[in-house]
Amino acid sequence: MSAVRNPNVRSGGPAALALSLPSPYLLFLGDVTEAGYAKTAFGLRDWAPESCVGEFACAGAAVTTGLPFLSPREAAARGARALVIGVANTGGVIKPEWVPSLIESLEAGLDIVSGMHARLGELPQLRAAAERLGRRLIDVRQPPADIPVATGRKRSGKRLLTVGTDCALGKKYTALALAKAFRRRGLDADFRATGQTGIMIAGGGMPMDAVVSDFEAGAAEILSPDAAPDHWDVIEGQGSVFHPAYAAVSLGLLHGSQPDVIVLCHEPGRRHLLGYPDYPTPQLQEAIAVHLKLGSLTNRAIRCGGVSFNTGALAPEDAESVMRKASQALGLPVADPLRGGADFERLVESCLAP
Amino acid sequence: MSAVRNPNVRSGGPAALALSLPSPYLLFLGDVTEAGYAKTAFGLRDWAPESCVGEFACAGAAVTTGLPFLSPREAAARGARALVIGVANTGGVIKPEWVPSLIESLEAGLDIVSGMHARLGELPQLRAAAERLGRRLIDVRQPPADIPVATGRKRSGKRLLTVGTDCALGKKYTALALAKAFRRRGLDADFRATGQTGIMIAGGGMPMDAVVSDFEAGAAEILSPDAAPDHWDVIEGQGSVFHPAYAAVSLGLLHGSQPDVIVLCHEPGRRHLLGYPDYPTPQLQEAIAVHLKLGSLTNRAIRCGGVSFNTGALAPEDAESVMRKASQALGLPVADPLRGGADFERLVESCLAP
Repeated sequence: MSAVRNPNVRSGGPAALALSLPSPYLLFLGDVTEAGYAKTAFGLRDWAPESCVGEFACAGAAVTTGLPFLSPREAAARGARALVIGVANTGGVIKPEWVPSLIESLEAGLDIVSGMHARLGELPQLRAAAERLGRRLIDVRQPPADIPVATGRKRSGKRLLTVGTDCALGKKYTALALAKAFRRRGLDADFRATGQTGIMIAGGGMPMDAVVSDFEAGAAEILSPDAAPDHWDVIEGQGSVFHPAYAAVSLGLLHGSQPDVIVLCHEPGRRHLLGYPDYPTPQLQEAIAVHLKLGSLTNRAIRCGGVSFNTGALAPEDAESVMRKASQALGLPVADPLRGGADFERLVESCLAP
Repeated sequence: MSAVRNPNVRSGGPAALALSLPSPYLLFLGDVTEAGYAKTAFGLRDWAPESCVGEFACAGAAVTTGLPFLSPREAAARGARALVIGVANTGGVIKPEWVPSLIESLEAGLDIVSGMHARLGELPQLRAAAERLGRRLIDVRQPPADIPVATGRKRSGKRLLTVGTDCALGKKYTALALAKAFRRRGLDADFRATGQTGIMIAGGGMPMDAVVSDFEAGAAEILSPDAAPDHWDVIEGQGSVFHPAYAAVSLGLLHGSQPDVIVLCHEPGRRHLLGYPDYPTPQLQEAIAVHLKLGSLTNRAIRCGGVSFNTGALAPEDAESVMRKASQALGLPVADPLRGGADFERLVESCLAP
């Protein structure tokens, strides 16, 4: 099986050993009524449009990606190879109400790709249908077997890792935007995905949060293998080393990625960690210093390329103002990749500066 | 099933939810010819003597714990409830040559307890025998299901965590010795085990290196639950935040343990991390500072109680000298728990100082 290459993100090479997905996709929206719960579908639409032939949903769904609504059979006729569950709900559960739609997809000749915590094969009806039809149930959150313990050996090629002051503030989008900008400048760059949506966008990657702790840094090492000296791996960050639950994921990823450059991601105005009101968001200067200190273990030359702000909640003038102030205070470029512009170009240049 | 209480370590209470083992044990030495590969057996002999009725081995073994050699049938007659695989070999494999001895043990009425990476049930002959005889195959390195994501909530009671400049330099022994010393002073203290040997010694615990990264800190939280205000949990450390492979384990454990006190464990003269010649062992002052910085995330009052030196390779005068010099340089007690003495008493007092 060979995945259709997504020219928007270009992920391939040896790291594809981790996972390789059948695309293009039909995006499944389940019975979702709020856009926030369909962020996987929106991420795919935005970052892997070539891999998305349309959307599909159960009766009662009230969210759309704007792509054509297709039955699984119609989607298969247009070349779709898999139905992707585009829902990100609390607990990562696959709802029983979805099963008839999923079986309809298997019958139409599609594999099913899921990034939920629950495993597709745990649904007996679905497993039976897949076996009967010879179709695959692919759990993106299932790490590969035989991940090695990290060696700590310095690898060839260049690496950038997005890190964060918290979860859910733009580490994936920043990495995607930087990889795209690097390629636009003619550089050889791969986006390396570490979470379920990123993996679906890239067509492969490593679900870092599902890896056993002893192998966390080792998993990051095989995700960004030796490469040509001027090749860039732009690696999607996970969690935060300042997070009381997820710092293990973040530190293993930082050590195993041995980045030459980090870009700190932050949402201005977020006063405490999401869902953790007793944990204030760290100061930017402090967050950069701690990451450089910890990251220097596996790459003494680590540096901070700049800061990525998620200013989606701000008016353009306010966004401009907070970025300018932060940039002056830190002496580093600060940009919102979704706004782009000269700020973002400065961030890109700073990351690439020798 | 209720585990026989080991009065030497006292581990019980709610954290026993993690694992609870059938003891006393018959220690199995496999076909080991070097003492270094039987460190699990030696650890049990030293720290859980009440739980060890004897030893057993295959033909060709050339190591002894000094305990009486008993057949599984003889051991069962003396009250043994489980055969414990006391071997720690490279790769954590259960050798096919051992299987007849293991089956003999099941037939004698013993369960089998293993801390190897390989699962006992993966050996078809062994699984069949256990099913036929109604005996249990217990993999200590298998974490419990349904470990929650960490909450970061401050828990009641006091906690001490041993941390290290590297792996394999005395974090378990230091925690055991401190818990014992605390109890000798009349304090209510539990040893909390985080690795396979520690879990066998304590009769329960959490195999931190086998927990999925997203739940690493959560696993540490349930290992040392809320307790009485003057109760101490003395938690066995794992790995090192300075280790390029295992720092994820160490940081998740540090955050989830939210220690009031850390004790840094070190082997004087170790110039680089074991098996990682490019990674110099960190300086003590620096190691303490980084741990306090990282640990302050979940416990702002964290402090360092002192340093534990593994001086097994040094003559007594030399040990005395390096400990005195380090203590002066750091302004903290430095002691070797295995040597005990006034230095160790000072370390204990410093840990308990309010």
